[in-house]
Amino acid sequence: MIGVFDSGVGGLTVLRALLRRIPDADYLYFGDTARLPYGSKSAATVAHYAVGAAHYLQDRGAELLVIACNTATALALNEIKAAAAVEVIGVVEPGAEAAAAASRKRNVVVIGTEATINSHAYRRALEARKIIVREKACPLLVPLVEEGWLDTPVTEQAARTYTIEALRNASANVDVLVLGCTHYPLLRPLLRRVVPQRIQIVDSAEATACALVQLLGVQLFDGYAFEPGEPSYKFFVTDSVEKFRRQAPLFLGFSAGEVERADLDSEGATSVR
Amino acid sequence: MIGVFDSGVGGLTVLRALLRRIPDADYLYFGDTARLPYGSKSAATVAHYAVGAAHYLQDRGAELLVIACNTATALALNEIKAAAAVEVIGVVEPGAEAAAAASRKRNVVVIGTEATINSHAYRRALEARKIIVREKACPLLVPLVEEGWLDTPVTEQAARTYTIEALRNASANVDVLVLGCTHYPLLRPLLRRVVPQRIQIVDSAEATACALVQLLGVQLFDGYAFEPGEPSYKFFVTDSVEKFRRQAPLFLGFSAGEVERADLDSEGATSVR
Repeated sequence: MIGVFDSGVGGLTVLRALLRRIPDADYLYFGDTARLPYGSKSAATVAHYAVGAAHYLQDRGAELLVIACNTATALALNEIKAAAAVEVIGVVEPGAEAAAAASRKRNVVVIGTEATINSHAYRRALEARKIIVREKACPLLVPLVEEGWLDTPVTEQAARTYTIEALRNASANVDVLVLGCTHYPLLRPLLRRVVPQRIQIVDSAEATACALVQLLGVQLFDGYAFEPGEPSYKFFVTDSVEKFRRQAPLFLGFSAGEVERADLDSEGATSVR
Repeated sequence: MIGVFDSGVGGLTVLRALLRRIPDADYLYFGDTARLPYGSKSAATVAHYAVGAAHYLQDRGAELLVIACNTATALALNEIKAAAAVEVIGVVEPGAEAAAAASRKRNVVVIGTEATINSHAYRRALEARKIIVREKACPLLVPLVEEGWLDTPVTEQAARTYTIEALRNASANVDVLVLGCTHYPLLRPLLRRVVPQRIQIVDSAEATACALVQLLGVQLFDGYAFEPGEPSYKFFVTDSVEKFRRQAPLFLGFSAGEVERADLDSEGATSVR
């Protein structure tokens, strides 16, 4: 039973990659939709929320935790590991590993939320692999995806503005762009048009699924070729179940089945009074 | 002592209007920055957070509460009133009143967050005043303001897209646009360019300050002409104090003085485990 944690719906791109590669596991997905986005919040607040979510998933039987949120991984992976009794895997190390493997010229640009970029978690992970790194926060890309503006002139202009800034004065050797946010894979076709062709796009969601396959020693069932067992999955969210159901298919590729409201907060609020 | 509550920094536009009109009061400002934005969240979650904040301000001596957040007003004013021991004023009624007074042709368009618009609080308040109403959610305008893109091509294009949709098939009699979100006054110059000249822009922040002046029977000190007493103000936020200090001047027009972290959540989280 694999617990997947995210601040909201973005982590569903990671779940989607996991389902494709490890289809016969059981999944619990926790989206902290009442308190999203994490990307603009402080490390202390994010760590605090993430540890609560990790406990929630563990209490419901998760035997392994995937932190499918770049911000939570960047800001709180150590705190989550310290608080969890099970193995914890984040998205930053797998993303950095995939980027390092892909970059022939050892020159990478990472884009992500404000909190992910300010944490410099990708910078550290890539520099440890002898890669030259540039980082660029793109705070508007998440709200643009959430608005469903995946391929509009506004989104293209915003993506152009951000990538021009990211590449300004950068080495001409940059040959990899890391999508350091789980929302960004939905903008991949648009980003592919906007970013120079010499630059390969690496997606942390895919990289994390691959890393988990290795960790579990699971055989790669690409496209269900081996008729594996049916995966089971259940979703917990802290805000509206209906809104999550409405948004999920865009990220997941199919309708979410069972979605339950996780009532972390009502307990919390009682003690506020 | 006036307590001003908002989900984040947007309510500072209301505080700014209050300081200008009621400069000799004491103010406590509460920004629930750890859990913002409210605009995309459900009514139950917003009510729950808002009631907690109202208690917090009241416990610290607020004798009157201004809900300087359109979403919280639209979704939770009754719950807050029921939970508070002091008088509570929201931004929707004053905004609707100002719009009704300004609209000669009794035809108004309201823009706001997804949650504010879906609540139809402005629709009800305006229809009660015999005004024909169109509503339009503009989810990207808040993140655009928070990114500081107050006058960029991206913001102009987004504002154009939203206002064109809002006015499509609308009556040619529409003569007032209500800014039903406290972030939007910062986009006023841009919106003025984008919206047809026949349409007057009404700002709920200003309208609320005017309503409070009337409620308190305070003389209007416009521009401090009467050398009133110095206002005192103190800020409480649930996320990073530094980030609030950095963002505040854009909304407030000057630097925030004393900012303190309100630790609603750590109490809450203990009970989560």
